[in-house]
Amino acid sequence: MVIIIARISAKTETLAELRQILKDLVAPSRAEAGCISYELFQDNDDPRDFITVENWGDSAAANAHLATPHVAAAIAQAGVLLAQPPLIHRFTQLA
Amino acid sequence: MVIIIARISAKTETLAELRQILKDLVAPSRAEAGCISYELFQDNDDPRDFITVENWGDSAAANAHLATPHVAAAIAQAGVLLAQPPLIHRFTQLA
Repeated sequence: MVIIIARISAKTETLAELRQILKDLVAPSRAEAGCISYELFQDNDDPRDFITVENWGDSAAANAHLATPHVAAAIAQAGVLLAQPPLIHRFTQLA
Repeated sequence: MVIIIARISAKTETLAELRQILKDLVAPSRAEAGCISYELFQDNDDPRDFITVENWGDSAAANAHLATPHVAAAIAQAGVLLAQPPLIHRFTQLA
């Protein structure tokens, strides 16, 4: 399994717009053949911070996700809305 | 639901010991009445970095978890093994 955990931070004035883009990305991502799970979270103390926790099964599926049209469209839309570049890391589940 | 996502960072020389403490915390945490899920991940590119993604159902269950003997013991053991204080945030699941 390859787990991707991504932290995506909005600016105060772009929070609502970025939130919608991230929510719209969930359904097409879950519909990908390699998607085992894909969850979106918002920080209770700082609602400008979002985290996705994604299980892609293997590296090929994770790489395929990043090359999909819906991810490309989200990146194109979200770029100017971000407070900083997304922090995207790959993880291995220990338990 | 209350989601806790925690980032815990070891020093290079304490990685193996901290990894075991974090693994040992999984089973008793999952056995708590309020635990919906509790998962432990290790960063593929920097194995000193660990993340837990925990679903506690509600704030009362999340608070009860932090007050358990197994969490207190882990904190006591892990303190000197950490590269920096843990980053612990509470989240709401959007999707």
